[in-house]
Amino acid sequence: MYKYKDDSYALHTDLYQINMAETYWRDGIHLKKSVFEAYFRKMPFGNGYAVFAGLEKVIDYLNHFHFSETDIQYLREEGYQEDFLSYLKTLRFTGTMRAMTEGEIIFANEPLIRIEAPLIEAQLIETAILNIVNYQTLIATKASRIKQVIGEQVAMEFGTRRAQEMDAAIWGTRAAYIGGFEATSNVRAGKLFDIPISGTHAHSMIQAYQDEYVAFHKYAMTHKDCVFLVDTYDTLKSGVPNAIKVAKELGDKINFKGIRLDSGDLAFLSKKAREMLDKAGFKQAKIIASNDLDENTIMNLKAQGAKIDIWGIGTKLITAYDQPALGAVYKLVSIEDEHKNMVDTIKISGNPEKVSTPGLKRVYRIINKTNRKSEGDYIALDHENPQEEKRLKMFHPVHTFISKFVTNFEARELHHLIIQDGQLVYEAPSLQQIQKMVKENLKLLWDEYKRPLNPEEYPVDLSQECWNHKMNKIHEVKEEMNKRLNIQGE
Amino acid sequence: MYKYKDDSYALHTDLYQINMAETYWRDGIHLKKSVFEAYFRKMPFGNGYAVFAGLEKVIDYLNHFHFSETDIQYLREEGYQEDFLSYLKTLRFTGTMRAMTEGEIIFANEPLIRIEAPLIEAQLIETAILNIVNYQTLIATKASRIKQVIGEQVAMEFGTRRAQEMDAAIWGTRAAYIGGFEATSNVRAGKLFDIPISGTHAHSMIQAYQDEYVAFHKYAMTHKDCVFLVDTYDTLKSGVPNAIKVAKELGDKINFKGIRLDSGDLAFLSKKAREMLDKAGFKQAKIIASNDLDENTIMNLKAQGAKIDIWGIGTKLITAYDQPALGAVYKLVSIEDEHKNMVDTIKISGNPEKVSTPGLKRVYRIINKTNRKSEGDYIALDHENPQEEKRLKMFHPVHTFISKFVTNFEARELHHLIIQDGQLVYEAPSLQQIQKMVKENLKLLWDEYKRPLNPEEYPVDLSQECWNHKMNKIHEVKEEMNKRLNIQGE
Repeated sequence: MYKYKDDSYALHTDLYQINMAETYWRDGIHLKKSVFEAYFRKMPFGNGYAVFAGLEKVIDYLNHFHFSETDIQYLREEGYQEDFLSYLKTLRFTGTMRAMTEGEIIFANEPLIRIEAPLIEAQLIETAILNIVNYQTLIATKASRIKQVIGEQVAMEFGTRRAQEMDAAIWGTRAAYIGGFEATSNVRAGKLFDIPISGTHAHSMIQAYQDEYVAFHKYAMTHKDCVFLVDTYDTLKSGVPNAIKVAKELGDKINFKGIRLDSGDLAFLSKKAREMLDKAGFKQAKIIASNDLDENTIMNLKAQGAKIDIWGIGTKLITAYDQPALGAVYKLVSIEDEHKNMVDTIKISGNPEKVSTPGLKRVYRIINKTNRKSEGDYIALDHENPQEEKRLKMFHPVHTFISKFVTNFEARELHHLIIQDGQLVYEAPSLQQIQKMVKENLKLLWDEYKRPLNPEEYPVDLSQECWNHKMNKIHEVKEEMNKRLNIQGE
Repeated sequence: MYKYKDDSYALHTDLYQINMAETYWRDGIHLKKSVFEAYFRKMPFGNGYAVFAGLEKVIDYLNHFHFSETDIQYLREEGYQEDFLSYLKTLRFTGTMRAMTEGEIIFANEPLIRIEAPLIEAQLIETAILNIVNYQTLIATKASRIKQVIGEQVAMEFGTRRAQEMDAAIWGTRAAYIGGFEATSNVRAGKLFDIPISGTHAHSMIQAYQDEYVAFHKYAMTHKDCVFLVDTYDTLKSGVPNAIKVAKELGDKINFKGIRLDSGDLAFLSKKAREMLDKAGFKQAKIIASNDLDENTIMNLKAQGAKIDIWGIGTKLITAYDQPALGAVYKLVSIEDEHKNMVDTIKISGNPEKVSTPGLKRVYRIINKTNRKSEGDYIALDHENPQEEKRLKMFHPVHTFISKFVTNFEARELHHLIIQDGQLVYEAPSLQQIQKMVKENLKLLWDEYKRPLNPEEYPVDLSQECWNHKMNKIHEVKEEMNKRLNIQGE
């Protein structure tokens, strides 16, 4: 199937990265210090916040970054010269990465990952980093959004068969767990990431026995914990009565945990099934529902008084069906000049929200010490320290008249040092700890930012110095361009 | 990062498959011969046809199917008993698979893959097969749909950074190639699958040099084939003039292949850029466009007379943005009874299109020998042979009055024997051959089935015998259910 062995991720990148790397190397500027930042510009799903995920895989990718023998062989075949290939063979990631930790609550236009590295390294790793972070952050956010509606009830990830290939199934369910889901049906994800796994039987088992009662009974004789799928023939006339019959017959021999509905009118069926279970004395039996659910259908089912205790979410979560891509970008914000001074860079665009913010930055969450709620996020230049300020001016970076002064605050820095000069200096928390952190981090947000429909816009502000720097850069670049184009200034 | 080594795909399945497997094994029915078929019920994107993809990875998965030591260790930890685990250790795929070949044109409700295997094996492999085939078929179909609009011009896959994790990026671009795309930006996919790779430089290179002309010149000095990305500052005032300047200065020293537009009004900019290139004597230089393109934007750009020669498609293709999941299912159609006779099974549903078609089936494409166009597909029971018929009755399986008689036809069987009793007996064609087959296979279809908007519905009919068998089964199951429920007849 494969032309070459699949033994490295160094070529998991766009060809232009390799070609630019070659230009930098032949031109001798490949070791220039450069700083790139990854961020997205628009909140996914119209949600009021997002949940950062993907860092562990990015770390693993950077730690193992190297061109394998077969990578080199392939590039040779594609026409790259031996001198450049010899250089690539020796290449490792030697830079520094600061980043949000997994489970951090994040917003549009905040630097999520900051890479300081020789230009050639920083360039080559762009594509893979975005590939990983875009998907995992998208799914963690979708999961958290769904979990807001589910509340204290149990949410389970059931989407493997509809996931976009195998990596999406397992990394997607890991992201869902970060976002607050309690379990997955994917056993491999359970094995790899220690996520609780869940599942009983499918319609095919009823078909294999050609008799629902027999099938339930056989299942119960071979598994102590039983959830019966009751919609193969007729949920209320056949499925629920057979489940009750088996549960009564076997009594204490099994744990009759409940029933699962996978089709039909879930509101109506769950209410009727609840009555039947209660009447039969199984008040503790849970009702699990699945079938193309998402935050909207769940909210509707709850509004209709559906008696559902546990929610199984598949397609709509694992593919982020209503917005299947997050558009994080990776932009150069600073680079060494010929005199070894760092020069901050900006990317201008006719589209105002596409103008990048120059310079090395840090992100702080400004937490009101009185009510322990966040006043917003504050992006400052690297050398600034809002932690030393007594009174902070926070203003909207576009509509600058929207402003406030904050006192008695804690400025919590959101970036952590992950890799320093190629060395991993960060110890990742367990997945369980990450999930817990999401819950803690969400407590800092007012409910207005967390509602699924029309949430308030959370403030993500630039420090005065950062904002001034950006405006100066815009002016500088425009002047420079006008000079070049021989057009009179503005 | 990982709790256990990621050394097998046997656990890339839903937990309920393992639990059913245990029930079958403890109950002693695990070796019953069973037949499952995979198919989808609804055409994706409202397209008139789909393109089958995923078979090679399914073969690889089945060939290597086994529970590794760490799989067993994990299941032990989850509470499974040693006797069952010992059995799982020995389990391999010993069944038979017939399937469509990759690149076959397929339709809703046709069996795409048919698995004949001991019940336990057929059950355990369901999830992974669907995960693979759903995504790869979805993307091959989306790519072919986009390619219908692009026509003879070149289509390139640029989506890695927005793909749903790494597998989607590489298997998605392979599927896009099957669907008719000419190249990819993903170097790893090029290395693994021998897909042509494409790419020059990004905005970051212009930023790194802080000067567009210098950047183009540096790139040209280090790469013979040059495409310049011209929209970093101002496409018409800066980008195109700088590209022309460098191309003129370097003359024959480089192959000035063209320019790339990645933002702005692509219709307007491409027309103006074309004029400028032509006037400068670069009539051969191509214009490449990208920026959230899909079949609709491309059709619109063409209608506006955009002068675009090569199309780079990212997000909308690699995530199948407008419908990011295909809903293929895997249903039991026949199983051995206690007397070792095969009994065909059906899944009844209140939803008519969800009723499965019982029995082992084969699919034939009925090709009119006079005009070499397909009359439709014909699903027959395993023992039937429409190739021996002189006159074939074809009728709509739901609206049966829609019918026709076909003579002078070729009945081309679409299923191929892939794995027989666990042994691979199929030699896969090269990816280039598969892409060519798609083009050949599409020629059999009238244009009415290939247009992107409101295509005609291609006939997928059941043979009279297959249809009768299904109706009898429905009747049988309903009688049986009524008897059990103690309700008077229909």
